[in-house]
Amino acid sequence: MSADVAARRGIPDASVARLPGYLQALTSLAERGISSVSSEELAAAAGVSSAKLRKDLSHLGSYGVRGVGYEVDRLAYEISTALGLTQDWPVAIVGMGNLGRALAAYSGFATRGFNVIALLDRDDSLVGTPVGDLAVRRMGDLDALVRDDRLAIGVIATPADSAQDVADRLVGAGVRSILNFAPCVLDVPSDVMVRKVDMSTELQILAFHEQRRTGELDLTAQSGVEGVVAL
Amino acid sequence: MSADVAARRGIPDASVARLPGYLQALTSLAERGISSVSSEELAAAAGVSSAKLRKDLSHLGSYGVRGVGYEVDRLAYEISTALGLTQDWPVAIVGMGNLGRALAAYSGFATRGFNVIALLDRDDSLVGTPVGDLAVRRMGDLDALVRDDRLAIGVIATPADSAQDVADRLVGAGVRSILNFAPCVLDVPSDVMVRKVDMSTELQILAFHEQRRTGELDLTAQSGVEGVVAL
Repeated sequence: MSADVAARRGIPDASVARLPGYLQALTSLAERGISSVSSEELAAAAGVSSAKLRKDLSHLGSYGVRGVGYEVDRLAYEISTALGLTQDWPVAIVGMGNLGRALAAYSGFATRGFNVIALLDRDDSLVGTPVGDLAVRRMGDLDALVRDDRLAIGVIATPADSAQDVADRLVGAGVRSILNFAPCVLDVPSDVMVRKVDMSTELQILAFHEQRRTGELDLTAQSGVEGVVAL
Repeated sequence: MSADVAARRGIPDASVARLPGYLQALTSLAERGISSVSSEELAAAAGVSSAKLRKDLSHLGSYGVRGVGYEVDRLAYEISTALGLTQDWPVAIVGMGNLGRALAAYSGFATRGFNVIALLDRDDSLVGTPVGDLAVRRMGDLDALVRDDRLAIGVIATPADSAQDVADRLVGAGVRSILNFAPCVLDVPSDVMVRKVDMSTELQILAFHEQRRTGELDLTAQSGVEGVVAL
């Protein structure tokens, strides 16, 4: 079974979500000239347990060799293939405010497998403005982008109150994969996949842990004894 | 048991990660003047199953009333308290490139519970440059920010190759919660929590689904018959 075939079978979503992390760790190892890695080392570099790593990779049909581990280049290629990164996916970013401009300039988008082909904005007064190597285009160009340039992924970088409208335009033009940066839940047909990048969500999760940590410190301070013993 | 006490007990990480989504959905309902919501409606708005929603909320000691559901304001308050959002967490953003500037301007950071108190950069030539309402400060100010302004959360918006150094500076100054936008894994002490926002990871997950979808379309096209029947 090739990795490509495996990709179309039922790899659990949670495993798919961890593959990019493994790929990133492998790329970093390759850059340092390391050609083989144990599951323990790779797991540590990706921030997961080695049992979870081995389980995830087994879905791709990739098993390490006892005492040797995984061949870095080969495993990177297998994961890239499984993720569909051996071809270029055309990406459009919608919304040319601060965030959209940052995303247009963000080197992470230049990762192998993605190609930002268009920047769009609903505001016609922005059309033609150069942002990096591209000029801002009008929303009406979406149909042509999907038809002629095989636009596959739309990135929504608008405020929350226009995100649903932009999503409707993308879906109407035939885009079926959306990366949403607007802090809202989008209503899309079931065959459309939306991934959300929500910075305030991540901040709130940090706040939870910060509170728990502070709470624990307070409790220690109140109990007193433990603090003294620890000294 | 108050929500605050619940927060310090063992709420599963996966449940904590979903609380911000519920809070966002509740905030949106409250803005529309809706005062009570069924678990099914709230679950749909947050994009999870109602069974999962009820399970998550039970960790807070919040149970809906049969036939009535949840009181919107009350539940929003309980979740805010559990997440630690009833106090303001001081945040500093490090790295004043495109991404850092976008984050400084991003309205999501102004969400209740967070307060961006400082923008920093390693490049001394940027120090003093105004970005929004703040002026860029030098990294050496971190100690004073933690000591005098109770800086709690550091946001890393630098390129990957300087992220670890910035993380070390933040940790050295006493920051224990880090939101990392750089596409790399950070090595930090075990009492430091790092959340990662990685746009290329999300894009890669979309690529996987786009490939699977395209693969399915190809298979349909090849089999031919199904296509005809569908017409």
